[in-house]
Amino acid sequence: MQAGKPVLYSYFRSSCSWRVRIALALKGIDYDILPISLIKDGGQQLAIIEYLEETRPTPVRLLPQDPKKRAHVRMISDLIASGIQPLQNLSVLKKVGQETQLAWAQAVINSGFGALEHVLQSTAGKYCVGNEISMADLCLVPQVANAERFKVDLSSYPTINRINKTLLTMEAFQVSHPSRQPDTPPEFQA
Amino acid sequence: MQAGKPVLYSYFRSSCSWRVRIALALKGIDYDILPISLIKDGGQQLAIIEYLEETRPTPVRLLPQDPKKRAHVRMISDLIASGIQPLQNLSVLKKVGQETQLAWAQAVINSGFGALEHVLQSTAGKYCVGNEISMADLCLVPQVANAERFKVDLSSYPTINRINKTLLTMEAFQVSHPSRQPDTPPEFQA
Repeated sequence: MQAGKPVLYSYFRSSCSWRVRIALALKGIDYDILPISLIKDGGQQLAIIEYLEETRPTPVRLLPQDPKKRAHVRMISDLIASGIQPLQNLSVLKKVGQETQLAWAQAVINSGFGALEHVLQSTAGKYCVGNEISMADLCLVPQVANAERFKVDLSSYPTINRINKTLLTMEAFQVSHPSRQPDTPPEFQA
Repeated sequence: MQAGKPVLYSYFRSSCSWRVRIALALKGIDYDILPISLIKDGGQQLAIIEYLEETRPTPVRLLPQDPKKRAHVRMISDLIASGIQPLQNLSVLKKVGQETQLAWAQAVINSGFGALEHVLQSTAGKYCVGNEISMADLCLVPQVANAERFKVDLSSYPTINRINKTLLTMEAFQVSHPSRQPDTPPEFQA
């Protein structure tokens, strides 16, 4: 590792790590990854993204300038990072127990995606909020990947589905993808 | 209700509503409350607080000026709003089932408070981050109230305990308290 270069403690499959990897890619920030096999899940990584936004506003802004649009971005981000992800992360599913964990994960994701689809219908353009990429998009893609992992039927969420597909064509979302990380095991590689 | 006056959809006992009530009290913003008996829990209310901060920076700032301190404030806020509160909210406890819900709530709060106490030992002054009140303090007090409701032993968390007691002496935390809301039932009134 190089002195002064930021180090991301990352786990290839963690949706929280992935959010930050997308932000770093969009900001064009070179960094080292220190893989850790067990991660403290939760939404704490939004603090990293807000910090990056405040200290590195270029080349891509992750929050719009308009306060109302910023509130929309944060509302969507929080809906995912507080309202969905924590309820289906690994530590919770372990507590729930093997037999019911798939049904539990599907229930919390479906409940959250119902609310999210409704919100997006009034905020979305090409992306989650209008036609500019934002922190909300960084939260969306890893959460949709979790939904797919838990076999959630996405056909009821056409806006979520469309935005996710658009975002996955972008370089920043591809290089940060769980299938392309230094700690990705062979069976998960693209 | 008065035209132009903000309306808060609030539930007396919701820790998420309480966070926003504290922010409104600190900012000196007059508002109407529209009580709703069932609330959509989660951390979404942080988007409201960030919006208030951006549009009403006076009389009290809820985020420090320094980017690193802002990151500390958001890290602590997210630890509570994404890492603890969603795992012990009403809808999750219903899913967990009556028999195990107290043990579940205690386990997730103890796990979160262990991490939080550790963080606060390096960030706290009089309040969660240094000697200025911040969004982190708005998250702390309602979460400690939840911990008390679930009979969590707070003696292992001396920093959390001390800051909570200091904050509860402040007017903004008192007027916003669940025991003093328009929808507080008689048995919960102070």
